[in-house]
Amino acid sequence: MSRGVISCRAAVAWSAGEPLVIEEVQLSPPQSMEIRIKVFSTSLCRSDLTAWLSQAPPQLFPRIFGHEASGIVESVGEGVTEFEEGDHVLTLFTGECMKCKSCASGKSNICQVLGLERQGLMHSDKKTRFSIKGKPIYHYCAVSSFSEYTVVHSGCAVKISSSAPLEKICLLSCGVAAGLGAAWKVANITEGSTVVIFGLGTVGLSVAQGAKMRGASQIIGVDTNSEKSERAKAFGVTDFLNPNDHDQPIQQVINRITDGGADYAFECVGDTGIITTALQSCCSGWGLTVTLGVPKEKPEIAAHYGLFLTGRTLTGSLFGGWRPKSDIPSLVDMYLRKEIEIDDYITHNLAFEDINKAFDLMREGKCLRCVIHM
Amino acid sequence: MSRGVISCRAAVAWSAGEPLVIEEVQLSPPQSMEIRIKVFSTSLCRSDLTAWLSQAPPQLFPRIFGHEASGIVESVGEGVTEFEEGDHVLTLFTGECMKCKSCASGKSNICQVLGLERQGLMHSDKKTRFSIKGKPIYHYCAVSSFSEYTVVHSGCAVKISSSAPLEKICLLSCGVAAGLGAAWKVANITEGSTVVIFGLGTVGLSVAQGAKMRGASQIIGVDTNSEKSERAKAFGVTDFLNPNDHDQPIQQVINRITDGGADYAFECVGDTGIITTALQSCCSGWGLTVTLGVPKEKPEIAAHYGLFLTGRTLTGSLFGGWRPKSDIPSLVDMYLRKEIEIDDYITHNLAFEDINKAFDLMREGKCLRCVIHM
Repeated sequence: MSRGVISCRAAVAWSAGEPLVIEEVQLSPPQSMEIRIKVFSTSLCRSDLTAWLSQAPPQLFPRIFGHEASGIVESVGEGVTEFEEGDHVLTLFTGECMKCKSCASGKSNICQVLGLERQGLMHSDKKTRFSIKGKPIYHYCAVSSFSEYTVVHSGCAVKISSSAPLEKICLLSCGVAAGLGAAWKVANITEGSTVVIFGLGTVGLSVAQGAKMRGASQIIGVDTNSEKSERAKAFGVTDFLNPNDHDQPIQQVINRITDGGADYAFECVGDTGIITTALQSCCSGWGLTVTLGVPKEKPEIAAHYGLFLTGRTLTGSLFGGWRPKSDIPSLVDMYLRKEIEIDDYITHNLAFEDINKAFDLMREGKCLRCVIHM
Repeated sequence: MSRGVISCRAAVAWSAGEPLVIEEVQLSPPQSMEIRIKVFSTSLCRSDLTAWLSQAPPQLFPRIFGHEASGIVESVGEGVTEFEEGDHVLTLFTGECMKCKSCASGKSNICQVLGLERQGLMHSDKKTRFSIKGKPIYHYCAVSSFSEYTVVHSGCAVKISSSAPLEKICLLSCGVAAGLGAAWKVANITEGSTVVIFGLGTVGLSVAQGAKMRGASQIIGVDTNSEKSERAKAFGVTDFLNPNDHDQPIQQVINRITDGGADYAFECVGDTGIITTALQSCCSGWGLTVTLGVPKEKPEIAAHYGLFLTGRTLTGSLFGGWRPKSDIPSLVDMYLRKEIEIDDYITHNLAFEDINKAFDLMREGKCLRCVIHM
């Protein structure tokens, strides 16, 4: 049962790009169909960084970022039967209501009720649950895990095995699951195929892991940071390319080494120009480009119609196409059976007080995942 | 066996947009792996019109257009075992070599050897087979069927049942097959789904026929020419929309009447702006847009990345994805069994001498297919 408003520490972003400040905030009890979670671990994802840096309107501050997290249910709101106090959960930045046309179809994870929230509010009542000295604090993706406690809709969390290590498994709340799903569920990579991955962060390297597990014969990783080369190979990348090392446009290099283009291309940078490059790096006939990133600027993709008319396809992957309630517990179980790798994506562990270091490390391209321990 | 150079009548385009002139031309015998065909019937496709009108470089004139045709093999070149004199054939504007990576895969009809030819020459030796008073005449799509006889690569024709009426079945050489294949093979429309088709010419209405046969519950046809409404309904269109009749952008109208967007959208106009509109008319989650048209101008498609990230897909359909040698004879047989409709797309029949009337009728939006009888 709910315990009323609580005070807890949260990392509050007061304005774009300014260091977060650990503040004492007030958090409402969970409303109808919501749950309050004691956050155990949360990791920094590139999307948090992008949103925090963005100068584009609307400027939703003060705000609590964070959307990749594990935790333990502290209390449940009215009508919640799926969870009870003490359940181990992962938060979901894109939820599953189980009832809308999309959820009911079983064909998609783009929930029409609890999908990606962009206004910094809760889906249900368009209000916030956090406040500081009476002033509302905006949410991020209806999760806001950079806080000791948070409130989410019960459709925006999934119960997982209590034997999973919460300090590792939080990576399945976004990044690693997003990459594996793009490879398996969205692209459905087949054995012996060629794959090119643009952007070798956690998501790109999770695509690489997924491609390797499917038996891809060539996994080309593209990144402008050559320091990523060694690590990439450990995750299955067979050929590392830094576009700055080549005089030719990188799509021409890729077309050459794949004899006409890759079977699959994945855009994991968040750059619409690279989506075009990815399409141009795919083979005619059946080349499939999957876009996973959230572009920081220039939201329009441009591509010559001839790329499509000669058999290429462009599709998107949000959270790897996973229907989170149905699919994520199975991924957790795969991890427990040592069938998928997660630990090696964790390059840094930080105390909550040091959360700004995580932002610095990601800006500098020094980390894959920094796990923040609450 | 080949009979050497022959003279025949052909409709020669001397410059962009100028009426064709019936001329006496010389046609080489078929070279190695080529066949010479006596054209029986040929119909005018929008692509012929677009290419004839185009002022864009390179200006390939004089030229013989036409790529949708039926005929009878007159002679075969060295090495041809697949055809013999007297065989009934359809010409193929995109051929099938059976050997390249794409053909061998069985996954695609984008032949890397005999694919769409854009230089006005034969694939094999980059030369022409037609001439007039010693001056070479450019081909079109390596077919050039606006001539009493033509020479094509043996991979750019397919043998069909001799019981099929050549004066009807020529429509399966491009337009009708392109639309049916987009609906069946590329989109794989499922029963009960919603479909929107932009452009209600022969290709668009063949998509409608294909969608109806698959049991689509709603088939929305969009065209700026309201005269097409009645005919469209005969081919399966359930809702006709003229964008000029609506204050709202047409994608908003479509989203409203389909409760969130269609399952499938087909662009059959040849306009990259309409490809964007088609994407915006599809539902999130699994909306599939298929582009079939060849844009007359502005070859770049622009689309917001969010359309893809929320589960929409864009793919292309060249000749309906059919692998012509394997698939087209079966379509001809379906026609003979009265399982598909072709005759109703033929709105006009013209003598070869009147070929310019076919161009006029299509420019004025008065026809679906004009069959030209040689």
